[in-house]
Amino acid sequence: MSILDKLGKEIVYIDGALGTMIQLEAPDIIVPDELNIERPELLKKLHAMYLGAGANVITTNTFGANDYKLIESKYTVEDIITSGVQNAREVAKSAYVALDIGPLGKMIEPLGKVTFNEAYEQFKKQVVAGAKAGCDLILIETMSDILEAKIAILAAKENCDLPVICTMTFNENGKTFTGVDPIAMVAVLEGLGVDALGVNCSFGPDKLMPIVEKIIEYASIPIVVQPNAGLPIMKDNKVTYDIDKETFALYIRQMVELGVSIVGGCCGTSPEHIAQCVKILKGMELKKQESKDLTIVTSARSGVVFENITVIGEALVPTGRKKYTQALEKGKDMFFYSSAKQQKKLGAQIININVSTPGIDENAAMIKGVKRISSSVDIPLQIDSIHPHIIEQALRYYPGKAIINSVNGTEESMNKIFPIAKKYGACVIAMTFDESGLFQSVESRLDIAKNIIERAAKYEISKKDIIIDCLSLSAKAYQDRLLDTLELVSRVKCEIGVQTMLGVSNISYGLPERSILDRTYLAMALSRGLDIVMMSVYDKEMIETIDAFNVISNIDKSAINYRTKYSP
Amino acid sequence: MSILDKLGKEIVYIDGALGTMIQLEAPDIIVPDELNIERPELLKKLHAMYLGAGANVITTNTFGANDYKLIESKYTVEDIITSGVQNAREVAKSAYVALDIGPLGKMIEPLGKVTFNEAYEQFKKQVVAGAKAGCDLILIETMSDILEAKIAILAAKENCDLPVICTMTFNENGKTFTGVDPIAMVAVLEGLGVDALGVNCSFGPDKLMPIVEKIIEYASIPIVVQPNAGLPIMKDNKVTYDIDKETFALYIRQMVELGVSIVGGCCGTSPEHIAQCVKILKGMELKKQESKDLTIVTSARSGVVFENITVIGEALVPTGRKKYTQALEKGKDMFFYSSAKQQKKLGAQIININVSTPGIDENAAMIKGVKRISSSVDIPLQIDSIHPHIIEQALRYYPGKAIINSVNGTEESMNKIFPIAKKYGACVIAMTFDESGLFQSVESRLDIAKNIIERAAKYEISKKDIIIDCLSLSAKAYQDRLLDTLELVSRVKCEIGVQTMLGVSNISYGLPERSILDRTYLAMALSRGLDIVMMSVYDKEMIETIDAFNVISNIDKSAINYRTKYSP
Ligand SMILES: [Zn+2]
Ligand SMILES: [Zn+2]
Ligand SMILES: [Zn+2]
Repeated sequence: MSILDKLGKEIVYIDGALGTMIQLEAPDIIVPDELNIERPELLKKLHAMYLGAGANVITTNTFGANDYKLIESKYTVEDIITSGVQNAREVAKSAYVALDIGPLGKMIEPLGKVTFNEAYEQFKKQVVAGAKAGCDLILIETMSDILEAKIAILAAKENCDLPVICTMTFNENGKTFTGVDPIAMVAVLEGLGVDALGVNCSFGPDKLMPIVEKIIEYASIPIVVQPNAGLPIMKDNKVTYDIDKETFALYIRQMVELGVSIVGGCCGTSPEHIAQCVKILKGMELKKQESKDLTIVTSARSGVVFENITVIGEALVPTGRKKYTQALEKGKDMFFYSSAKQQKKLGAQIININVSTPGIDENAAMIKGVKRISSSVDIPLQIDSIHPHIIEQALRYYPGKAIINSVNGTEESMNKIFPIAKKYGACVIAMTFDESGLFQSVESRLDIAKNIIERAAKYEISKKDIIIDCLSLSAKAYQDRLLDTLELVSRVKCEIGVQTMLGVSNISYGLPERSILDRTYLAMALSRGLDIVMMSVYDKEMIETIDAFNVISNIDKSAINYRTKYSP
Repeated sequence: MSILDKLGKEIVYIDGALGTMIQLEAPDIIVPDELNIERPELLKKLHAMYLGAGANVITTNTFGANDYKLIESKYTVEDIITSGVQNAREVAKSAYVALDIGPLGKMIEPLGKVTFNEAYEQFKKQVVAGAKAGCDLILIETMSDILEAKIAILAAKENCDLPVICTMTFNENGKTFTGVDPIAMVAVLEGLGVDALGVNCSFGPDKLMPIVEKIIEYASIPIVVQPNAGLPIMKDNKVTYDIDKETFALYIRQMVELGVSIVGGCCGTSPEHIAQCVKILKGMELKKQESKDLTIVTSARSGVVFENITVIGEALVPTGRKKYTQALEKGKDMFFYSSAKQQKKLGAQIININVSTPGIDENAAMIKGVKRISSSVDIPLQIDSIHPHIIEQALRYYPGKAIINSVNGTEESMNKIFPIAKKYGACVIAMTFDESGLFQSVESRLDIAKNIIERAAKYEISKKDIIIDCLSLSAKAYQDRLLDTLELVSRVKCEIGVQTMLGVSNISYGLPERSILDRTYLAMALSRGLDIVMMSVYDKEMIETIDAFNVISNIDKSAINYRTKYSP
């Protein structure tokens, strides 16, 4: 029986700390992972204690088993992982053996010097060795950098078929060390297809509560919590932790009541903590976890939840933008930063990035742009390219949940884009045209939208991650179809119930005083239920229209933002 | 059997010219009306000839029977009318006798010196005498000034119970001498409740065709046509007319095919023309006349048909407008003119007029304003007062079809306003509140709207003349209800199918940069089907929004107006 049959269906108990136990038994050890080879009986004893306490899952003693941490060790990563899995396996009986993977201990680019590929190779080595030695699942834990977690997950999923669980560790400010908030974590990890996600280490279960609540609010998959036993304190010249097993278990029960289904411990916890949890949780029914119908995209740190009107800045598209085109030609990546920063300041919540200009290496430029912006501006990106391989590369390096711009209703497009979107957990802008041509009737465009969503579902892409572009046409060429697009917006909202999007300014192409037409069409579309507008945030009147809409639709309560911004 | 049982149900033949026939028989006569008394046998002979030709309706020889034209006559109006009716009555048998009323021959204020009341007294005298002498209907004809026609109709309807038919005479430019176009004529005369309307005299039936087509396009009641026999020409030293009876009758047939149901002749026609019509129209079926579902209001000259978005200028409301308040206080009526002219230039299609300010005679000020504007600016008025008697006075003097601002869903309001609206044929702004209070739920406000329309129907006020004010609330006080109003707009359009109106700028009351909120709310409302906006046309951004909407909704075809106005 795979652990997948248990996750989310019953309470699963992971073990507690090995590190803390080892500290007691082998206080002089520098690289605890070496004990797998040097003192296998100790490890088996510790695993057996957790099994005896009632753990269903025991984690291997391989937290630091990577080349960076083993640099002075006489053992290889493979040796340590192989013995680590064997030690657990030998005592596990019906329990599951989780290959424990911790962070590399070095920061990854752009935060540090380790490259994406170097990190990937480390995690791959661990996964391959662990799977070969017979572990049952991969537990990626104590992650701070969402990109590192992503690389580890990709390495796991691309190199074995085992279930993957990932947990991150948070600071007192409610974010990880690199600034990732719980919403971003949930969106990215769920998007990457982990089987459970959650939080470990951090601090005691009491202080973890608000973070766990946030995770429960946004996650649709089983949630793991493995807290420390409170904060470390010195007592009788020994490090101990300030939360006793009873208190620990009471908090864990509270979390299970709220919706957590996988529990365990981290620093300072012992088999007694787990045993107390098993005792106190006995007979509890799991809270049914609801699938959250929320569209979320994220930067490397924080998430944008599509609840109100969302603005995507379109200034990083070279067509008609000389300065940006020149920056691309000269390879000046500073422009990415300054434009993204400025657009964010003016009201963009997401930045569309397109680097298509003649004579440059688009793939390289896109990766450069994605890295540059995502490392310096806290704003999600929308990857805009007509080349699926460029989109894929950008998504691979992107440290968050992005939007793909775009798929359309043609078979070719869906066959190429959906697998990428699924793998990297991206949202997708879906343009409502297909092989029968551009600019069809409202009915046809609605059918195309429905078909796109059905086809996406076959790739297990939820409709919440599909954004329907209702196609803003130019008044110059299609004046008699402009109201059709607005009708499509309301019908897509009403009949399909997904996010709708318009690149409003097409309407005014070739006409004078474009802002007047754009802002009017925008307000009309908002009135019909439009969710997302892709626009130039440099257009003051468009931003004003959104600010006004937020007052009118009671989002900007008491017009606080409006008054602040517009009072003389 | 009243003629009302025939009108619109079968072809009704009115006679042709008496004047032309009299010219032949009594070439020296100066006041032809005197012949009623001096040569009754001649009149009876002429009437009999028309009866012999097949006329169902013979008109009395009383075209000029008023004090202005009879100033040098030894007979009174009453004498002439009494004998005129008697002459016709004696030979009429089963035919109907129409009391013929022509224009006074003097212009009425403000075009001339005759006052409304003086004119009214003249027409009243004719009507009272005619009814007393036993005529069957009142035929008001050859009118040029819509106000004169209106006074005559009011005099007829207020002083007898006979059916009233009214026809006007047009010039080659398609308008009457005072500039009334066919749409305005139809709207005003229908509004005043005449039993048939149409055109007489003017020129030959060939050249009348486009005017008749316009009337047919807009009228919902039976249509009369009594053309001249072409244009007068000198032949053998005698005046004759250039269209022969066969050609005349062929044109008449064409008109009947299009929808005219009452035919006859004017200058130059003879019993032969009528006989030829009777012959050629024999056995023809009337074209079923459809009730036109068009909301129309008019100035003294032209109509505004509510097909696209209609703008009502609100600048003539004293509240918060110092200059206007001062003008009212000082009795300066020039301000009415300059404001109306300016508002029209800026885009108002209708002007709301309210004179309520402390310390002035509101009734006098309102009448002054109505007269001043309607005599100098070609734009319909909306009469805005909380006092029904002021509304009634204004409507009485107003030379067109106005809008009443406003009725609401309370019994008191409906009981007072609907009789006035019906009598003067005005459209009515209906505010969606009632005794249960202001600002109710969408459902309640929709019910109030439905109730208002049902109650209006009991007064025989068509729903096309009811304009539902969906009530724009202030964001400051009712932020959570603003979208309700937009929902009400679309539900009123969809479920009741009447004109909807908003006084948009309430929304921004007390907030900064009001134009941003106003223009955004306006565009949102337009997107939900709003028909009429009452607004300050001095707000450039509001006007821009309407111009943009007209492009977006394909009203401003190829954006011709937009490009003209906004190209640099
Ligand atoms: Zn820990
Ligand atoms: Zn731990
Ligand atoms: Zn005539």
